[in-house]
Amino acid sequence: MRQFTHRLSVHTHGKGLYDITNQIAQFVAEHAVREGLLTVFIQHTSASLTIQENADPDVVRDLNDFFGRIAPEDNRLYRHTVEGPDDMPAHIRAALTLTQLSVPVQESRMSLGTWQGIYVFEHRTAANRRHVVLHLLGE
Amino acid sequence: MRQFTHRLSVHTHGKGLYDITNQIAQFVAEHAVREGLLTVFIQHTSASLTIQENADPDVVRDLNDFFGRIAPEDNRLYRHTVEGPDDMPAHIRAALTLTQLSVPVQESRMSLGTWQGIYVFEHRTAANRRHVVLHLLGE
Amino acid sequence: MRQFTHRLSVHTHGKGLYDITNQIAQFVAEHAVREGLLTVFIQHTSASLTIQENADPDVVRDLNDFFGRIAPEDNRLYRHTVEGPDDMPAHIRAALTLTQLSVPVQESRMSLGTWQGIYVFEHRTAANRRHVVLHLLGE
Repeated sequence: MRQFTHRLSVHTHGKGLYDITNQIAQFVAEHAVREGLLTVFIQHTSASLTIQENADPDVVRDLNDFFGRIAPEDNRLYRHTVEGPDDMPAHIRAALTLTQLSVPVQESRMSLGTWQGIYVFEHRTAANRRHVVLHLLGE
Repeated sequence: MRQFTHRLSVHTHGKGLYDITNQIAQFVAEHAVREGLLTVFIQHTSASLTIQENADPDVVRDLNDFFGRIAPEDNRLYRHTVEGPDDMPAHIRAALTLTQLSVPVQESRMSLGTWQGIYVFEHRTAANRRHVVLHLLGE
Repeated sequence: MRQFTHRLSVHTHGKGLYDITNQIAQFVAEHAVREGLLTVFIQHTSASLTIQENADPDVVRDLNDFFGRIAPEDNRLYRHTVEGPDDMPAHIRAALTLTQLSVPVQESRMSLGTWQGIYVFEHRTAANRRHVVLHLLGE
């Protein structure tokens, strides 16, 4: 059993979903791990992870809009407002989605479904550099 | 350290929760893994996973109703409507719940709490066959 | 490759977030695992896990308030009411957050971001003792 760890940097420019499937698939392919478990972990509390449909770009836009409705930028709702109106909604959106995701690896590939893509879900308005840790365990 | 991978098929017939705890427990019991980690991964973006109370069937009905209220079938809210009024709500419901779940294994059994059951959460109205990948690592 | 399992007891006294980062970090530090994967699993359906900002206590208060708004204590909304008005909202809050969380371990420490803390998210009003299983795998 062997393991490999790698840290990705993902540049974001405003709220929405950023596809990182190919970068993760490349990390898995680089190491000769036929069967195992791949873990993705994002090191932030105002950005998160999600798996969504990678076919129709409208899905990821509608998803971003939904989170805008459920956690609106309205400072009257929150105590924590010093970092701007998008900050507390960002923490809520992160809590409702994923900080970590593990995917079984078979035949040296992630066992994703046909339409599944792995996304960084940015919840802040400003541009950011986000850090994602990848851990691969198997043989 | 050894590992085993298996794919379950789960037949669903409309929105709601489908208990797969026994099928997963049987997969764990079949392999002589005393201590380890079991991972469940669903290969879809309009069905998901959740752990909920397996005692009172009203809990899973109320849970399904809650998601119907929070992500209503109202095409005016969404761009992605070509696959029917239940499609974009399905993606939202999946994003709010789990695509993957890992459970520690001790004494050859999953370390579930007394009332915990593992469910496939179907978010589409039509009948579907859903695929769930199980990965067991340990010794 | 070695593995270790441990069960934490967490005393809670009403809805809100309880920081367990230090207890988990101590479990990781006790075992000489340089690189690996740490899994946290909570054995309940009315309490859950979340990773949130550990710097400003207002963030965790606002987060708790948000879940109170989205899943209100209103028995007219639910069938499952026998365990009190906070019970079905507790199951909903648990379904929207995490039952399990895995964090890569590097240089004998969890790869948490600077501001990330791991919390038990209590969703019931009464005091409770909650059980959290820790599983560490690596070498």
